[in-house]
Amino acid sequence: MTIERPTALQPEMPATRWGDPAHAAGLPDGVRDLVGMVFPIQETPARADVVVPATRLSAAEIAGLRALVGDANVVLDDGLRRRRTRGKSTPDLLRQRAGDLSDAPDVVVRPAGHDEVVAVLAYAAEQRIAVVPFGGGTAVTGGLVADPAGLAGVLSLDLGRMRGLLALDPVSSTATLEPGLRGPEAEALLAEHGMMLGHFPQSFEYATIGGFAATRSSGQSSAGYGRFDAMVVALRVATPVGEVRLGASPANASGPDLRELFLGSEGAFGVITEVTVRVRPLPEVKEYEGWRWESFAAGSDAMRTLAQSDLLPTVIRLSDENETAINLADPESIGGEGDVDGEGAGCLMIVGYEGTPAAVAAKKAAVTAALTALGGAPQGSGPGEAWAHGRFDAPYLRDSLLDVGVLVETLETVTFWSNRENLYARVKAALQASLGEGAMVLCHISHVYATGCSLYFTVAAPGGGDPLATWLPAKAAACEAIVAAGASITHHHAVGTDHKPYLTAEIGEVGVEVLRAVKRAVDPAGILNPGVLIP
Amino acid sequence: MTIERPTALQPEMPATRWGDPAHAAGLPDGVRDLVGMVFPIQETPARADVVVPATRLSAAEIAGLRALVGDANVVLDDGLRRRRTRGKSTPDLLRQRAGDLSDAPDVVVRPAGHDEVVAVLAYAAEQRIAVVPFGGGTAVTGGLVADPAGLAGVLSLDLGRMRGLLALDPVSSTATLEPGLRGPEAEALLAEHGMMLGHFPQSFEYATIGGFAATRSSGQSSAGYGRFDAMVVALRVATPVGEVRLGASPANASGPDLRELFLGSEGAFGVITEVTVRVRPLPEVKEYEGWRWESFAAGSDAMRTLAQSDLLPTVIRLSDENETAINLADPESIGGEGDVDGEGAGCLMIVGYEGTPAAVAAKKAAVTAALTALGGAPQGSGPGEAWAHGRFDAPYLRDSLLDVGVLVETLETVTFWSNRENLYARVKAALQASLGEGAMVLCHISHVYATGCSLYFTVAAPGGGDPLATWLPAKAAACEAIVAAGASITHHHAVGTDHKPYLTAEIGEVGVEVLRAVKRAVDPAGILNPGVLIP
Repeated sequence: MTIERPTALQPEMPATRWGDPAHAAGLPDGVRDLVGMVFPIQETPARADVVVPATRLSAAEIAGLRALVGDANVVLDDGLRRRRTRGKSTPDLLRQRAGDLSDAPDVVVRPAGHDEVVAVLAYAAEQRIAVVPFGGGTAVTGGLVADPAGLAGVLSLDLGRMRGLLALDPVSSTATLEPGLRGPEAEALLAEHGMMLGHFPQSFEYATIGGFAATRSSGQSSAGYGRFDAMVVALRVATPVGEVRLGASPANASGPDLRELFLGSEGAFGVITEVTVRVRPLPEVKEYEGWRWESFAAGSDAMRTLAQSDLLPTVIRLSDENETAINLADPESIGGEGDVDGEGAGCLMIVGYEGTPAAVAAKKAAVTAALTALGGAPQGSGPGEAWAHGRFDAPYLRDSLLDVGVLVETLETVTFWSNRENLYARVKAALQASLGEGAMVLCHISHVYATGCSLYFTVAAPGGGDPLATWLPAKAAACEAIVAAGASITHHHAVGTDHKPYLTAEIGEVGVEVLRAVKRAVDPAGILNPGVLIP
Repeated sequence: MTIERPTALQPEMPATRWGDPAHAAGLPDGVRDLVGMVFPIQETPARADVVVPATRLSAAEIAGLRALVGDANVVLDDGLRRRRTRGKSTPDLLRQRAGDLSDAPDVVVRPAGHDEVVAVLAYAAEQRIAVVPFGGGTAVTGGLVADPAGLAGVLSLDLGRMRGLLALDPVSSTATLEPGLRGPEAEALLAEHGMMLGHFPQSFEYATIGGFAATRSSGQSSAGYGRFDAMVVALRVATPVGEVRLGASPANASGPDLRELFLGSEGAFGVITEVTVRVRPLPEVKEYEGWRWESFAAGSDAMRTLAQSDLLPTVIRLSDENETAINLADPESIGGEGDVDGEGAGCLMIVGYEGTPAAVAAKKAAVTAALTALGGAPQGSGPGEAWAHGRFDAPYLRDSLLDVGVLVETLETVTFWSNRENLYARVKAALQASLGEGAMVLCHISHVYATGCSLYFTVAAPGGGDPLATWLPAKAAACEAIVAAGASITHHHAVGTDHKPYLTAEIGEVGVEVLRAVKRAVDPAGILNPGVLIP
């Protein structure tokens, strides 16, 4: 087929904020008043006098890159280099707001396709320039912060020109996508053929196909459509020692599954230039509804029962008592039974069904019977519609809260069901102890498996004038609690640089040695996202 | 919990045949007459005058091993060494029948548990002795044939003493098993707790948990319960450089999934000493039934539709016209519409449902509606019961046919749905061309995915007095056809030594370099199953 590309491109994100500036509404007065009742309001605008460091690359190196991808695609512009600096974690945003551009790339290079990526990697290896693949820039664990020690500088490999639907196989239900396609762009291209991918993480509006693969993303419909890594059928990866194509078949016994080595490799083993994924017909029906549970434990037991009965709906998420109370306090939300202190509201679960009318009806009947038998109370479609309406809005709200000096950040982990309660208690206690009793610590479960589930924490706390200094010890305490509980340091945010200190505890010294060995094999010059992922 | 172990151990398999000698019935007269109508009958008993080569290990090396695991667990006995030679492919059996013991291990060592495995590996690395992990001895692709070039000899690491259920977590639905547990033993231990694993490959009666993991086995219930690798939650692996424990959570974004590097590693990266798997409640209901399709294409399209609708039963398998005709010609089978030439019988599909009565009823109703709409004709429970009754018998029949000079062997592959017909035609043509028009080439699909399916071929042909010489060129031609079709060289039999020449075509030079790099990192002395898997 002819390569199909998106017609409408979304605007770039600003350096200091999330998302489309046209969508950023600021805090409505009512919400601002509510926030002010809990936290001190302190206007904290981003600094305007920001200096982007001069490039460390020589004129000869810049010329060499230009010869590979064309003059227009080797960019030294301060504005673009600033927007290619770090990702969108709260610390990333706080550093950008403070004008700290110490991690700015020295150059932004925009290859047109796989062959140009290969050429750039070969040149970068020869010249010893660090290469940081850049997709949507939505990283939240420091995956875009390479350490150029011993290297000439940092090249941001912007995949924004690699935005094609390269192939669609309707018989096998697979599509081959270029890595720079954003979530909505990929879905729009597939929708032209009546198909969809079905991957909807919080970062959906900006995150890209390559990033989903490189970080093992998981989306809000993971119960029905699976994690992104489980959707991947095949990969094409450019490395400094040559390309590798993996995924000759859906599943096989042809030795170790090397797809699983490049999935989650965060740019350290190569640049993913093509991703072949399983696609599905667009759902004819989408229904989202609310269920109320007496407690987080009761709701999570119900999720466990569904998962272990292979009876999962498309979407299932459960807020703990605190998060439920905050949701109910939102004037746009339904209810009003609860109050902001989290008493009495119980726990809200969102359950969503997508598919053909027959499949949705059958699944809904079975799930409804199971949830009812387990003690859930149906709340109708109101909470489901409210969730669906605001499902990608949280990062915009975070900006508005950072504007008034409130620290907001998220972190997540995953464990087996028998360890869920222990992990929840430890992480919550660690965050509360570090941030103080004035902080709000909210949690939800949004990814479930037969054997366990993720825990996703959101904190809101007084920024104390230096929100970064407030947050970093809390994050460290949470990570230590996760390690102490024997859980994974990340369910779907990836390792980056932020979680790197905790990876050895999870995969062991031999596991780390294996990563290093693979790194040496595919990246002997050590130019691929150095300092990220591998301890 | 206390470690639980099987009470009844199955008898060892003979060196020259499959399975429990008490179950081997020989060819019933009616079947023998039928075979004689198609192939020349030529009695070919195994040679009796077999000489096991003297061990190449020194007295000091044997003493060193005895110090680690006890005198009784370092075995030089000719009979045991013969039974630890190679696996159970047809070439393996033919070589054993011919008295070829050139691949016999020099010693059989039986460690009691993980710590003794670690000790043996360290000693073997120091003394440069090749180590071949031995579970059930059911390998069919040469995975037990190490190349000891440059090493002192070959040690068969018999895991038969490591047969414990180490832990059961009913909340998380996981069980931790030792590698030497055979399929029925693992199921019996789990059944004591009302649970099951649900992995039933053809080799179920003898194959072991460690082998399932090391070779990425797939069982007859893969549609419902998944491939073995998909059941694995965690692994403990002993390597010469230390142990590695993987699987801190059900799924995560903590970098590459290293479980997937040790799954399918066939003893080349380490010895799997513990496997934690997802378990399920024992099914209350099991129903198997037959469906008839006009053609292999029509039946496989129906399988594809079910898989892409996420509507798979527990078991689904479809025989092509030739295999269907052979099944119907079996006096024990139902029917009689077809004849042995494969005309008129159409294609038989077996569909099985297992679970709670409610889940089985719901799934059966949905699948029945779908299959009926697609043109399938229900055949009732007869064919299903017949399949379930004989599901593990094929290897016994093979022995009986080898006894009368008939060559019988199987091979398998996997591809995407859009390539299924091409792959089927190429492999079938290659086998038929190599084996001659007098050969029977049968095929079935027994593992399906949303994006593709496996093809499992069985051949029966005149042995021509030297069945091995007849088979090896046919196998090579089939492998070349698989490569030419762009499919995987194996769906669930693994690489071993037989498929090694074709692996580079599948994973590329960079993929092979990655395997070599991992091998060097975990096995610097090169003692782990040398010559297997890695080109």
